[in-house]
Amino acid sequence: MSDNRVQKGTQVLTKLTGLDSFPPLEAIRNFYPDFADMIVANGFADIYSRQGLDEKQRELITLSSLITQGAIDQLDFHIHAALNVGVSPVEIVELVMHCSAYVGFPKAISAMGVVMRIYQERNISVHQPV
Amino acid sequence: MSDNRVQKGTQVLTKLTGLDSFPPLEAIRNFYPDFADMIVANGFADIYSRQGLDEKQRELITLSSLITQGAIDQLDFHIHAALNVGVSPVEIVELVMHCSAYVGFPKAISAMGVVMRIYQERNISVHQPV
Amino acid sequence: MSDNRVQKGTQVLTKLTGLDSFPPLEAIRNFYPDFADMIVANGFADIYSRQGLDEKQRELITLSSLITQGAIDQLDFHIHAALNVGVSPVEIVELVMHCSAYVGFPKAISAMGVVMRIYQERNISVHQPV
Amino acid sequence: MSDNRVQKGTQVLTKLTGLDSFPPLEAIRNFYPDFADMIVANGFADIYSRQGLDEKQRELITLSSLITQGAIDQLDFHIHAALNVGVSPVEIVELVMHCSAYVGFPKAISAMGVVMRIYQERNISVHQPV
Amino acid sequence: MSDNRVQKGTQVLTKLTGLDSFPPLEAIRNFYPDFADMIVANGFADIYSRQGLDEKQRELITLSSLITQGAIDQLDFHIHAALNVGVSPVEIVELVMHCSAYVGFPKAISAMGVVMRIYQERNISVHQPV
Amino acid sequence: MSDNRVQKGTQVLTKLTGLDSFPPLEAIRNFYPDFADMIVANGFADIYSRQGLDEKQRELITLSSLITQGAIDQLDFHIHAALNVGVSPVEIVELVMHCSAYVGFPKAISAMGVVMRIYQERNISVHQPV
Repeated sequence: MSDNRVQKGTQVLTKLTGLDSFPPLEAIRNFYPDFADMIVANGFADIYSRQGLDEKQRELITLSSLITQGAIDQLDFHIHAALNVGVSPVEIVELVMHCSAYVGFPKAISAMGVVMRIYQERNISVHQPV
Repeated sequence: MSDNRVQKGTQVLTKLTGLDSFPPLEAIRNFYPDFADMIVANGFADIYSRQGLDEKQRELITLSSLITQGAIDQLDFHIHAALNVGVSPVEIVELVMHCSAYVGFPKAISAMGVVMRIYQERNISVHQPV
Repeated sequence: MSDNRVQKGTQVLTKLTGLDSFPPLEAIRNFYPDFADMIVANGFADIYSRQGLDEKQRELITLSSLITQGAIDQLDFHIHAALNVGVSPVEIVELVMHCSAYVGFPKAISAMGVVMRIYQERNISVHQPV
Repeated sequence: MSDNRVQKGTQVLTKLTGLDSFPPLEAIRNFYPDFADMIVANGFADIYSRQGLDEKQRELITLSSLITQGAIDQLDFHIHAALNVGVSPVEIVELVMHCSAYVGFPKAISAMGVVMRIYQERNISVHQPV
Repeated sequence: MSDNRVQKGTQVLTKLTGLDSFPPLEAIRNFYPDFADMIVANGFADIYSRQGLDEKQRELITLSSLITQGAIDQLDFHIHAALNVGVSPVEIVELVMHCSAYVGFPKAISAMGVVMRIYQERNISVHQPV
Repeated sequence: MSDNRVQKGTQVLTKLTGLDSFPPLEAIRNFYPDFADMIVANGFADIYSRQGLDEKQRELITLSSLITQGAIDQLDFHIHAALNVGVSPVEIVELVMHCSAYVGFPKAISAMGVVMRIYQERNISVHQPV
């Protein structure tokens, strides 16, 4: 991997997580460095740093994909990331509701459970649009 | 179903399709009216007419879900809908590229094939952001 | 949402759970009332209270869908619901076995694990048909 | 494979299809006999000929699984099979509607399209329960 | 089920697990013997003991399928099985990386987490190919 | 994208297809060059040219993933690719049979249909291992 892409992707990751170093990624790097580099370079550098969609749009798209594929254990990262790049708490809740019509209630209910837990951890309260 | 929700959903559908009457929905209505009403009321009225996300955001979320679940034969409707509510041609292409990291290349390539066909039909040319 | 649909759906939910009030739904209602109403109205009122299929058939269909989509964490609710509306313990086990041919053994084995745990909690013993 | 299981499964297949010999299976048998035998023995003999669920219940479960996994090209066989073992036309339509809440509208709409085509081919008209 | 297929499948299972008796299967057998027999006969005897692919190839195929369907809770069994039949630790890690391009990063990252945990439990260290 | 990775990926693609230039990829390149480069660089260069798994193993893994995710329209490419890098016709058929236990019969039967068509087009006859 070119160092350049890994650097660019690391900057994206810092923006998404708000952290200089992301422990779960460092655990992967200790285990098998190429996979960590691939996540950062092919995932974050090549995708998130592209023009054409802003970071908020990219996180909406990502959250929808995670909910649709039932990747519940990867939702935490991207709910935090979405909030960190400026997606509003209500937008995330409405996204989950929107998805219920496209993926069915079971996956939407599971996803809302994760949202509820994270909002409680971050002391976020939401008010429904009237 | 309340007539009110069906009316509200029909207005949403008209906005998404640009058509007063959508033939595939009318075919369903002739076959089994309650399913047509449910699509319109529970899908379009209860979801798309909510506050909290605008129509462009809702179509990005929908397209991501369709690509993720491999619902290729339902992509046409929502690529047209996305364009009709103001999602730009480049945004749709970038969405498909973004999804490739989250759902893998096979589904992304299939989806891009649909995008390419529709853009040709609608004489849309895209220019990559520099 | 019309109060009427929410009321009708709440009655269905009471029948499925055997409870006047279902705590996980109330937690959602406290968080974002519209999502709770949507689950009850669009899920339980509009679907389960329809004619054409009885409740036992609806739970067989639901369980098959949950197992197929790997929605293991939503299985508890509907195994209990199936038992509560009169699906027999053997029918549920046979449904899981049947699904193994349609979704593969991994998802069927995961589902059977949930069935086994619930039957133990409810002191249900099953006897294979001869 | 034991001849016994293949024979038993072939009888099930005849019941589901209404045909003494099912051409797509015979095409597979000409290509690679063991796969045909496995479909018949492990699929139809070991599953459909079990006690505990009747054939109508088994087809409801199968249809729900096919719709959920998006296996649209395998729906034809089991819609015909469901009708052949006595599932009513309305029950199949209601099953598709029911699934819309569990798998989302896109897959349900695709499935309903197959139902509509088959009912037209078989001159089946459905009347909604009042 | 014929005793012969169950015996043959049990031998396969012993090879995959390194154990004379596999407790999770015995728990299923105590609950509903036919399902245990079906897993062993239709799964292990009819599939794994066939010619045409060796056991290492079969485990690569199985692991790819499990990762793709998000069947994370069934990964443990087959990572151990793969190692037990001679798939190398690096091959498994490379398989997960390979899958990231076909199923997206979320499922690949979840799978790598399981691999990392199991390698730690078994004191396996991997060295990237140069 | 670095020219280097695109070049390396193009060499992989030529090996998989047996063609100097692959028309479907060129169509994508004419439409939106970055997506073509991403497929080639992130897909073929970064994945297929890695050490640790050989090309035959990589195609077995890919085919299993495609069948599992129901990506039937992407199977053609990789069945041809598998044959081109030396996977035997019987190995591919056995892979599909193997998958039937992990993904269910519907997806396996659909996949076998593609295999049968391609083998007929390429005049490949298979003989079952005894």
